Amino acid sequence: MTYTLVLLRHGESEWNAKNLFTGWVDVPLSEKGRAEASHGGELLKEAGVLPDKLYTSMLRRAIMTANLSLDAADRHWIPVERNWRLNERHYGALQGLNKKETRDKYGEEQFMAWRRSYDVPPPAIEAGSEYSQDTDPRYAGEPIPMTECLKDVLERLMPYWNDVIVPDIKTGKTIMIAAHGNSLRAIVKYLDDISDDEIAGVNIPTGIPLVYELDEETLKPIKKGGKYLDPEAEAKIAAVANQGK
Amino acid sequence: MTYTLVLLRHGESEWNAKNLFTGWVDVPLSEKGRAEASHGGELLKEAGVLPDKLYTSMLRRAIMTANLSLDAADRHWIPVERNWRLNERHYGALQGLNKKETRDKYGEEQFMAWRRSYDVPPPAIEAGSEYSQDTDPRYAGEPIPMTECLKDVLERLMPYWNDVIVPDIKTGKTIMIAAHGNSLRAIVKYLDDISDDEIAGVNIPTGIPLVYELDEETLKPIKKGGKYLDPEAEAKIAAVANQGK
Repeated sequence: MTYTLVLLRHGESEWNAKNLFTGWVDVPLSEKGRAEASHGGELLKEAGVLPDKLYTSMLRRAIMTANLSLDAADRHWIPVERNWRLNERHYGALQGLNKKETRDKYGEEQFMAWRRSYDVPPPAIEAGSEYSQDTDPRYAGEPIPMTECLKDVLERLMPYWNDVIVPDIKTGKTIMIAAHGNSLRAIVKYLDDISDDEIAGVNIPTGIPLVYELDEETLKPIKKGGKYLDPEAEAKIAAVANQGK
Repeated sequence: MTYTLVLLRHGESEWNAKNLFTGWVDVPLSEKGRAEASHGGELLKEAGVLPDKLYTSMLRRAIMTANLSLDAADRHWIPVERNWRLNERHYGALQGLNKKETRDKYGEEQFMAWRRSYDVPPPAIEAGSEYSQDTDPRYAGEPIPMTECLKDVLERLMPYWNDVIVPDIKTGKTIMIAAHGNSLRAIVKYLDDISDDEIAGVNIPTGIPLVYELDEETLKPIKKGGKYLDPEAEAKIAAVANQGK
């Protein structure tokens, strides 16, 4: 017997379309993003991969992607839990800035270090500033970050993975996690034992369900990298790698 | 101190628009219904009535209404629980039939008895028939009905109200229930102590949040009937009463 885990990255947001650093800023899906979400749900339905339980971040682009995809898959009625530990990487002081302008201002090396290095966080965001979440009621009482590198994401995500999601996977339910480029890269790094250097080259396309079958004993993937429910997914992975160029 | 409870009836569904008996058939919102849902969320936001926790039925018209309204109110991230005990009244063998044709076939008296009497259920639906839910996986293992009168709805709803929702109200959270014409009439009948006869004249408009302030000790409304977050709501109540004529 194996366990089934579905990872779903949200569809295009209005700020993806504008090429801005988003992080924890709670922007809506674009019309294209809503269509991607529904299409993701149709792929689930066609493949017969039917989630029994949903986990989402606290951000509307992941929540709405889950809502639309599960509605299309006829699984809108399953239980759901949301947690900030599944949020996108906090982009610190870069939140709200244009990616191309940031690259032009700081240079390719610094830009790529902030975007793709494992352990270099951007400068922290200022408390109380326009794109900070330090007074947002949804995070009240939680030890939320003011900036993060991918290593930080993995470290804040793992307690939730180990304490909440893993026990739920072990009940045999098909679990779906609707989240973000970097929170899903953190999960993939852990599952596939990807090194700190190699994770820079791993990209997850938007709106395409990524299905892992996990070994019953080890909870490690039967097949490294899992399986995208879309033959075109590989092309989309390449497209993500070229973002900001 | 008082507790705050918000009741929200789903927006127009595709079968409301076609004048069909829907019951437990899981039809989507119409475009008008989606707009009603978003408008309901804007009313919540304007009034500063911000739900901390959502309860929904297992049906997509209530679930999507909640999703869209909470997104508009910037409360899409709150925790949610779903339960079939909040579902619409099961309309038995009438599910899928046209309301006007049913009235013409059975006569006004029988039609109104099925629609508005407190304790006369329609004939039971046949197991395995097109519009029956007896094999639907979302209800597996649950003691679901094959037809219901309003009294039946109240009886299956009250255990969930008393055991799950009331303890949650008592924590001080603002609770929102997104559900259906008849499951919400059952709650209103209970809260406002409306008699079995008088409940026939009570109608709840779609997409308009109905806010009750509940006494801390008795959990009964401070003001009978609560308050709709819309000055036009009274007109809409009258419109529902004329449905099928």
